[in-house]
Amino acid sequence: MAELYVVGLGPGDTACLTGEAAAALARAEVLCGYGVYVELIAPQFPGREIVTTPMKHEVERCRRALELASAGRTVALVCSGDAGIYGMAAPVLELAEEYPGAQVQIIPGVTAALSGAAVLGAPLGHDFCVISLSDLLTPWDVIEKRLSCAAEGDFAICLYNPASKKRGDYLQRACDIVLRRRGGETLCGWVRNIGRAGQEHRLLTLAELREEKLDMFTTVFIGASATREIAGRMVTPRGYRLA
Amino acid sequence: MAELYVVGLGPGDTACLTGEAAAALARAEVLCGYGVYVELIAPQFPGREIVTTPMKHEVERCRRALELASAGRTVALVCSGDAGIYGMAAPVLELAEEYPGAQVQIIPGVTAALSGAAVLGAPLGHDFCVISLSDLLTPWDVIEKRLSCAAEGDFAICLYNPASKKRGDYLQRACDIVLRRRGGETLCGWVRNIGRAGQEHRLLTLAELREEKLDMFTTVFIGASATREIAGRMVTPRGYRLA
Repeated sequence: MAELYVVGLGPGDTACLTGEAAAALARAEVLCGYGVYVELIAPQFPGREIVTTPMKHEVERCRRALELASAGRTVALVCSGDAGIYGMAAPVLELAEEYPGAQVQIIPGVTAALSGAAVLGAPLGHDFCVISLSDLLTPWDVIEKRLSCAAEGDFAICLYNPASKKRGDYLQRACDIVLRRRGGETLCGWVRNIGRAGQEHRLLTLAELREEKLDMFTTVFIGASATREIAGRMVTPRGYRLA
Repeated sequence: MAELYVVGLGPGDTACLTGEAAAALARAEVLCGYGVYVELIAPQFPGREIVTTPMKHEVERCRRALELASAGRTVALVCSGDAGIYGMAAPVLELAEEYPGAQVQIIPGVTAALSGAAVLGAPLGHDFCVISLSDLLTPWDVIEKRLSCAAEGDFAICLYNPASKKRGDYLQRACDIVLRRRGGETLCGWVRNIGRAGQEHRLLTLAELREEKLDMFTTVFIGASATREIAGRMVTPRGYRLA
């Protein structure tokens, strides 16, 4: 019977790791996760057993971590960004009842909505929605409905997983839904490789975003009606009187 | 001409401070912000000049920080949670053009939506909205419209500023809007004093949340249709096949 920490590493390299996350990793005897993320932190926490699983093997990854904790090992299961935002926290908690010895603790981290926003300026400075465009686990009509409601509510919108090889036109379809309620001149932005070598970003209009070819390493921001460009930054004001 | 870092401290005490935020605070000659937050971090970063402003003096706080950076001081303006989520990043960027010497850099942090979610389990494991119930800067009809659209889109919803002395019934009004589209048995939760002494939390139904008396130190989570209680935790599954 031992602790299983589900740990959000923050973006990119480990500069955004929190003190709480670092403490959990230091206590862990086993570091578990998708290979790329475990390799990022392993040099800082040497001497631990390493257990990696390939991409898309999320359920297997959760079960391995729960098994190890149930058997008495202190385990850290690492996730990019935050543990709870499209991360491993939910499936671990869904499975945990099958592994009675494992004590699950969720350790939050800086998700791409926050780290990407900081690169662009303050696009999420007022009410916002976070939507994943991946339909691997969610029917596309649910995603469409959420995009439509987010646009209707004049939320700033942050899109995760805007594209993949099999979903070449999903961003275009998402933009078309938002364009029914917002003008083509609506300010948007994207950030690629947040906090990693080769980080890049761009501000553009919603009409331009519709034509953009992005990849799965990119986070997209669609402005609300109040969002505007100020000296090259994307800012959604909260409404302070600035005088 | 110098750097102005707008720094998210994460929740409560400084256990959730990121490495990047700690590095910015270490470089700063002046620590600026609301008194309570500056006092939290001042002992870890001694010898700095301290400039505090009272609550609700946000614009004055931003101007003081920009003035100091414009005059050549390296300044950290600190915010609870994240710098960009209802924080000082947006007003600083709006005002920055008036202070040509100040180089503004936004340093993200763990906002209450993430830290509160980690306490409850994984309520934001799928698409979600963040909405502030404060109408100090936002007309109430805009807030109502967003609540209605968030409920319509079956988003998990995180509410900031659910109540204050002057807004005793706002949470009740918000629940009534969501109740038009979701059943009274919808799973909800709240977390108070996240990451601080006296942290407390509760899972409850939407019908019960409507009757709850909360304060401004509380963050509220309203589940989507898929959200459920698993061994005392609030979990919104993403849809993994768990077999």
